Amino acid sequence: MLVVMAAGATAEQIAAVCAEISAMGFVAHPMPGPTRTAIGITGNRGPIEQAERIARMPAVAELIRVTAPYKLVSREFREAATVVRVAGVPIGGPTVTIIGGPCTVESREQTLAVAHSVAAAGATILRGGAFKPRTSPYAFHGLGETGLQILAEARAATGLPIVTEVLDTETLPLVAEYADMLQIGARNMQNYSLLRAIGRSNKPVLLKRSFAATVQDLLLAAEYLLDAGNTQVVLCERGIRSFDDSSRFTLDLGAVPIIKQLSHLPVIVDPSHASGRWEQVVPMARAAIAAGADGLIVEVHDNPAFAVCDGRQSLVPERFEVMMAQIRRVAAALDRDLTPQP
Amino acid sequence: MLVVMAAGATAEQIAAVCAEISAMGFVAHPMPGPTRTAIGITGNRGPIEQAERIARMPAVAELIRVTAPYKLVSREFREAATVVRVAGVPIGGPTVTIIGGPCTVESREQTLAVAHSVAAAGATILRGGAFKPRTSPYAFHGLGETGLQILAEARAATGLPIVTEVLDTETLPLVAEYADMLQIGARNMQNYSLLRAIGRSNKPVLLKRSFAATVQDLLLAAEYLLDAGNTQVVLCERGIRSFDDSSRFTLDLGAVPIIKQLSHLPVIVDPSHASGRWEQVVPMARAAIAAGADGLIVEVHDNPAFAVCDGRQSLVPERFEVMMAQIRRVAAALDRDLTPQP
Amino acid sequence: MLVVMAAGATAEQIAAVCAEISAMGFVAHPMPGPTRTAIGITGNRGPIEQAERIARMPAVAELIRVTAPYKLVSREFREAATVVRVAGVPIGGPTVTIIGGPCTVESREQTLAVAHSVAAAGATILRGGAFKPRTSPYAFHGLGETGLQILAEARAATGLPIVTEVLDTETLPLVAEYADMLQIGARNMQNYSLLRAIGRSNKPVLLKRSFAATVQDLLLAAEYLLDAGNTQVVLCERGIRSFDDSSRFTLDLGAVPIIKQLSHLPVIVDPSHASGRWEQVVPMARAAIAAGADGLIVEVHDNPAFAVCDGRQSLVPERFEVMMAQIRRVAAALDRDLTPQP
Amino acid sequence: MLVVMAAGATAEQIAAVCAEISAMGFVAHPMPGPTRTAIGITGNRGPIEQAERIARMPAVAELIRVTAPYKLVSREFREAATVVRVAGVPIGGPTVTIIGGPCTVESREQTLAVAHSVAAAGATILRGGAFKPRTSPYAFHGLGETGLQILAEARAATGLPIVTEVLDTETLPLVAEYADMLQIGARNMQNYSLLRAIGRSNKPVLLKRSFAATVQDLLLAAEYLLDAGNTQVVLCERGIRSFDDSSRFTLDLGAVPIIKQLSHLPVIVDPSHASGRWEQVVPMARAAIAAGADGLIVEVHDNPAFAVCDGRQSLVPERFEVMMAQIRRVAAALDRDLTPQP
Repeated sequence: MLVVMAAGATAEQIAAVCAEISAMGFVAHPMPGPTRTAIGITGNRGPIEQAERIARMPAVAELIRVTAPYKLVSREFREAATVVRVAGVPIGGPTVTIIGGPCTVESREQTLAVAHSVAAAGATILRGGAFKPRTSPYAFHGLGETGLQILAEARAATGLPIVTEVLDTETLPLVAEYADMLQIGARNMQNYSLLRAIGRSNKPVLLKRSFAATVQDLLLAAEYLLDAGNTQVVLCERGIRSFDDSSRFTLDLGAVPIIKQLSHLPVIVDPSHASGRWEQVVPMARAAIAAGADGLIVEVHDNPAFAVCDGRQSLVPERFEVMMAQIRRVAAALDRDLTPQP
Repeated sequence: MLVVMAAGATAEQIAAVCAEISAMGFVAHPMPGPTRTAIGITGNRGPIEQAERIARMPAVAELIRVTAPYKLVSREFREAATVVRVAGVPIGGPTVTIIGGPCTVESREQTLAVAHSVAAAGATILRGGAFKPRTSPYAFHGLGETGLQILAEARAATGLPIVTEVLDTETLPLVAEYADMLQIGARNMQNYSLLRAIGRSNKPVLLKRSFAATVQDLLLAAEYLLDAGNTQVVLCERGIRSFDDSSRFTLDLGAVPIIKQLSHLPVIVDPSHASGRWEQVVPMARAAIAAGADGLIVEVHDNPAFAVCDGRQSLVPERFEVMMAQIRRVAAALDRDLTPQP
Repeated sequence: MLVVMAAGATAEQIAAVCAEISAMGFVAHPMPGPTRTAIGITGNRGPIEQAERIARMPAVAELIRVTAPYKLVSREFREAATVVRVAGVPIGGPTVTIIGGPCTVESREQTLAVAHSVAAAGATILRGGAFKPRTSPYAFHGLGETGLQILAEARAATGLPIVTEVLDTETLPLVAEYADMLQIGARNMQNYSLLRAIGRSNKPVLLKRSFAATVQDLLLAAEYLLDAGNTQVVLCERGIRSFDDSSRFTLDLGAVPIIKQLSHLPVIVDPSHASGRWEQVVPMARAAIAAGADGLIVEVHDNPAFAVCDGRQSLVPERFEVMMAQIRRVAAALDRDLTPQP
Repeated sequence: MLVVMAAGATAEQIAAVCAEISAMGFVAHPMPGPTRTAIGITGNRGPIEQAERIARMPAVAELIRVTAPYKLVSREFREAATVVRVAGVPIGGPTVTIIGGPCTVESREQTLAVAHSVAAAGATILRGGAFKPRTSPYAFHGLGETGLQILAEARAATGLPIVTEVLDTETLPLVAEYADMLQIGARNMQNYSLLRAIGRSNKPVLLKRSFAATVQDLLLAAEYLLDAGNTQVVLCERGIRSFDDSSRFTLDLGAVPIIKQLSHLPVIVDPSHASGRWEQVVPMARAAIAAGADGLIVEVHDNPAFAVCDGRQSLVPERFEVMMAQIRRVAAALDRDLTPQP
């Protein structure tokens, strides 16, 4: 249920409605919009019987029954697009934000070299994995805290905020200490304990779509974060599993306009993991921006042939530069600029 | 097997190699390239034992074993991109070609109205179904020959060549009489009798990818056409089946750069059938061009609410115009123009 | 729309209702059931306005609006299970019918040897491909009419009726001359011209589910056959495409009970094509019978290592015998016998 | 790498090889088999250079390079089938083990009623969810510890050991205190922190296949458990996502014989979650046993119409009884009995 307040509703009137909702045993989520405030109600199962009582309160313009199973993430609840700020770098506004960096933090040298090159090419956020989820227990699982320290050093050297993956609630405090944005990986998209724990933090979140999630599943996973109090959520399409074996995953760019229609949250695209081959990465990066994505997260490696993981899909810095130049032109064709560096 | 001739090979030397291949019981496919001629060999099962004999012939530069199961459609066989010409309109060259029109020819008035509006917006080929494949035997199956006559009238009125679907070998002569380009629908992509019959015609072909076909399946279906003698083939990505239910099909734009890498044939994208909703069509049209597609085929209807089929995914002429303006800008960002009208 | 006649309705009363339906411009499909006759109406789009007129006719018990998009194949239209008879061999009744034979007719010797061994093991129908659909134009496409003659000889030698695939309308008359049952392959499931042509014949049909077809798509394809007049249709589940790469196709045994619930047509399962490995064939054959399938179609080859196609998934005659013994026991656990040999 | 010891190898010789492996910096996993002992080596990346040194040690019969990415779960490592014991109830031996109970523990009355009825029908393990993973944050998430206490009471009343899901490492100690077997749900199959934590416990584990996991992904997830020290692992197929919308998930019974071939771990099937409809549950339960599964886990509810979740797919106790009778007969057709009650 969504309570839409009249255009001139006062702060007191809004507070009164929230209080009434709480008195009914539900949770009120006031959401100020550009012209008027809406108040989302969660905690109810099925229709709210006493809805009439709210409808008659002063400055209540309208009650809207929300039909989608997700609420706080929906466009019905919040009309204006959300802009998430990562240490000052916006994702989701008029500009297009590019996140670049190595798949995995392998060494200080590699990470600093890649960080400098993506910064020079115009990226505004640095990515890099310190804790890596791997299908096999025998694969390399990342440098852990050492990796986080290297990322922090790269941040200091380049000025770029950093996003890195959190694998579990145990390491969440450690990762949150270093990271500017917390990444929830595709395999953890429905790890509800982790979603709830990160939802209670105030860090911006990059929530990757599971390769088996429908768009609705993704929005419901984001709903866990917002329901727990964290509204700084960026969604990320990174490819779904299909029968086609010509790439690792099928990048579902059609999800971008659908999500933009259903939700107010920003959406970015990871063209690297779906492709599995660097030759596909640049065209798909262009396509993602043309589809309306708010940004990209791209793997860059200074020597992909020796990458500890996923080297085949990493761009060398020169190709990343080419990609940035092309992205700039495609974004311009949609009247968007790249997000300026901090 | 591919025989690469030396750069200065004479016509006689090329003919001699072809004759030798024929004498061995195989089929020779000479393919002149920008710098040198290659001769594809088909008809062999497994390696060719007498290959040495060919290797020693005058002006033979190299023998290349082709490892992909398709041959004539592969980049290994033909380096330069194929440009297909539909009554003079190119598909596959430096420009981007837009095909527009109604899903189904419903009436003379509707078809002429839509034809004029897509022509005015800059489309260079007109689409429209006269024979429609339908999942249910009780659905509308098209106007048949009357529909073809209406299309011909629309061509005369607008100057746009027409592409329309052929359902079977029985109606192929009739459709070929009217159409400038023959469309093979997704459900017929592995109808080998139809592929062979159309392969023996000299009409340009638009081969749509089945919603269950891998990229390799699509290339092998095209191989049937080329093997039968028709090299004027345009491939079309139109969405594959996946578990996600937020759109009708999952548009696999990642297939575009993969096909461009594996094959010399042009690739266009149909953003209408995958979407199922017009709101998705324009963003996916932009994304397709940004991914490197050589064109689009888009459904336009003057009154989608009353469309006999697929109205939900059709653009009204005004939105088609908006799409064309955006496509023009995205294409420009890739240094491509729209194909000029005939 | 379905008109259910009263239990004691006379032939004249039934004829009168059919005449009235024809007079309205629709098609009447009288379907005698065990206790009463139902008359299906097709040819209408949307609800029938004059339905009241039929409802008031003598001996009309009830009018039922059919909500599924398929009609003639549905359980609503025909309560009793259909039994298809292939030269006297029933498929779909209380017994379980096993079809065995080589994937492809390779030679007279191979076909006769396999035919004798499957007959000895208790199979009641012989399978074998004379015209083969192949993904690649360069693969072996079957012996054609010679293959049909060999099959006919194997039938004469063993007494088993034969089922073989029809690829197109051109070769339909030839194949129909030899075959006791016509197989429509998975790739042709939505080849509507072929469905209509076979629908007009009076031969029993084995309709294989496309690897990309939903259950509803399959039932609608069968509806084409019944709508064209052929009610002797057996459906066949043979595996669908999924992301899992551990077998060639994912055998969707869950479709068996769903189809049995939705339709009166018999359903059999092909465990060979889905598996791709003979080790999986026997367990999946058992599972299919346990799921309620009315039979199996299984590939058998006397020397799989030398099979022209699909050898990897063929059973040798000894393993086919083992399978038959196991199937007999599983069928008995469901109170079913194997269909006795003719 | 797998070291196969000679048939008569002494305990000292085996210990010496293990010591040598440790000295090389790797981990030795001695696995006594029916005829001889094998010693698995993990901890190496790539081939072991000093392998020759091991090959020359006394009583070493053979070194086998393991090619699959999983090791400890593979048949290559352990020839004999693993039998997991849940408070004395075996899963994986010659008998077939049926786990039944409610999807969710809703109340004391419901749980005890269902527990008594599944026990009466012959089930040997009781299932029931106290902590439930739900796609929506607003759905019912289970009774938590109260649910565990109710399950413990049901165990005391019926003598059946209990299996229940663990959602996260935080609640693992609590759940482990009550449960006889820990279930890892499909959404957590790649939650590596949870896998590792449960791998360090000594409780039997029921690992459900993610609906997006290949068979190899599932085996690698199990490898995490075995690598952490827990060998009491039962795998569970419960349906994968596919394009077909006629059931909730596509039950991949073909995975059963494949897993039995690749791994020594027991495999059971959950026919309830895939189906989404109780009418499908019984046929698929029969099919699973016929495919060679070592057991089933089935949802039973005394009043499905009022079930808090998943009522549509639950069997009422009477149908569960019917299923048990049928399963008993299908198992007998494979020379297997149901596991006797404790």
